[in-house]
Amino acid sequence: MAFFDDLAARIDEVDSLVSVGLDPDLDRLPESIRDADLPRWAFNRRIIDATHEHAAVYKPNAAFYEDSDGWRALRETVAYAHGKGVPVLLDAKRGDIGNTARQYAKVLDEVDALTVNPYLGEDSLQPFLTRRDAGVFILCRTSNPGGGDFQNMELSSYDRRLYEHVAIRASEWNDEYGNVGLVVGATTPDELETVRDLTPELPFLVPGVGAQGGSAEAAATFGPNDDGVGLVNSTRGIIFAGEDSDAWAEAAGRAARKLKQELEQYR
Amino acid sequence: MAFFDDLAARIDEVDSLVSVGLDPDLDRLPESIRDADLPRWAFNRRIIDATHEHAAVYKPNAAFYEDSDGWRALRETVAYAHGKGVPVLLDAKRGDIGNTARQYAKVLDEVDALTVNPYLGEDSLQPFLTRRDAGVFILCRTSNPGGGDFQNMELSSYDRRLYEHVAIRASEWNDEYGNVGLVVGATTPDELETVRDLTPELPFLVPGVGAQGGSAEAAATFGPNDDGVGLVNSTRGIIFAGEDSDAWAEAAGRAARKLKQELEQYR
Repeated sequence: MAFFDDLAARIDEVDSLVSVGLDPDLDRLPESIRDADLPRWAFNRRIIDATHEHAAVYKPNAAFYEDSDGWRALRETVAYAHGKGVPVLLDAKRGDIGNTARQYAKVLDEVDALTVNPYLGEDSLQPFLTRRDAGVFILCRTSNPGGGDFQNMELSSYDRRLYEHVAIRASEWNDEYGNVGLVVGATTPDELETVRDLTPELPFLVPGVGAQGGSAEAAATFGPNDDGVGLVNSTRGIIFAGEDSDAWAEAAGRAARKLKQELEQYR
Repeated sequence: MAFFDDLAARIDEVDSLVSVGLDPDLDRLPESIRDADLPRWAFNRRIIDATHEHAAVYKPNAAFYEDSDGWRALRETVAYAHGKGVPVLLDAKRGDIGNTARQYAKVLDEVDALTVNPYLGEDSLQPFLTRRDAGVFILCRTSNPGGGDFQNMELSSYDRRLYEHVAIRASEWNDEYGNVGLVVGATTPDELETVRDLTPELPFLVPGVGAQGGSAEAAATFGPNDDGVGLVNSTRGIIFAGEDSDAWAEAAGRAARKLKQELEQYR
């Protein structure tokens, strides 16, 4: 089944657009699980137990798993999320060429969707796009302070900015492959609205709500496509909501439910 | 010691600009080592034995190590290359934000230099740039067929193309941090020359020679900066030069030496 059909079903089932970021920063894990065999997996498991009823997807960021034990923890996490019926979107921001891109695309045997970086152009994305069962979220306008440094450059031939051109190309690729989404941050709501107008059919993954201060209203309004399919991510605002408490997992569950309800107001 | 000083010394020592790509594609490893505990490490070790006298750096691509055993193989490979006196440039094309970028930057505790993707802007690169001991190679004009899709877009405010603007920004960052290089492919020699003219002081990593058909002459002419510091990478043309032979390691050694000598003509 295609990822975006799965995602639509999941959003309906839990009535939630919430993407729960799983970035188990080893320096911030609770004392009580630091001695586990795989602390990141032990942490994610309890977070998943506490949040899965509010989670449309889980979004682990590859940066937090890139070592030998990390990949084991990630694999366990993915299996566990799947066991709870929640798709997994790996936030890896891949961008490479030829046989290297094909190598990176193999991770789609394990996870359901991936984020990719468009800077290297169409052929660098093709090994992902041709996986029609998987979701491919292309970075468009990112939520960080320097997101506009290059993305907002005006292009002379199109009277558009770079991120708008990326959105338009992504829409063309979606016409061909049917599996494309965009990453558009909530910290620049005007640009989020612009991209929504340009590509009404594409599901967005909207980061930047929570710790980064982005607008939940803009995220819930412009994140979903025509069919109501889209994702609003929060990571630290959920998983570290109860960082200094023994009841950290319960705090994460409450934070996920609160974000779900907050987004609900604006859908 | 700063990476580019180390690299200059290494280039002098072996009289070579050759970057040997270490992409141990499991499907292409020789039968004789497939049963090793860590086949990728067993392969890399013999390649390093055969090529280190001609190698300015080793450049493993992270795509080929992104699993549990892979990171073990990579760590062994890095230690072994260092034991032979060869710096290691991890080709990971990182691009992420905030605490995630900081997490990715920790790999610079183990390797000497890294490739990064500029699409997310200055703050996404800062965790790497502030590691002044490490080399940071920013993707500028890549060697793949679609490299120009976005990189060659003309910018209205600057009368320049995107990759040229990236080069100019990279040069500014180098003024501040002193540790910046660029990735500029050999498959588009005109653009390679353009970037060399724009940023005479930056060392380039030039991929695309060999399997991708790029010009060795252009790579050797425009890859090195004013001080002769630069790198020309070949991966499959070296490590799989003797793919069907029992003497595959020796064939790799000959291919590395041949590339060194070919580049020598044009330096």
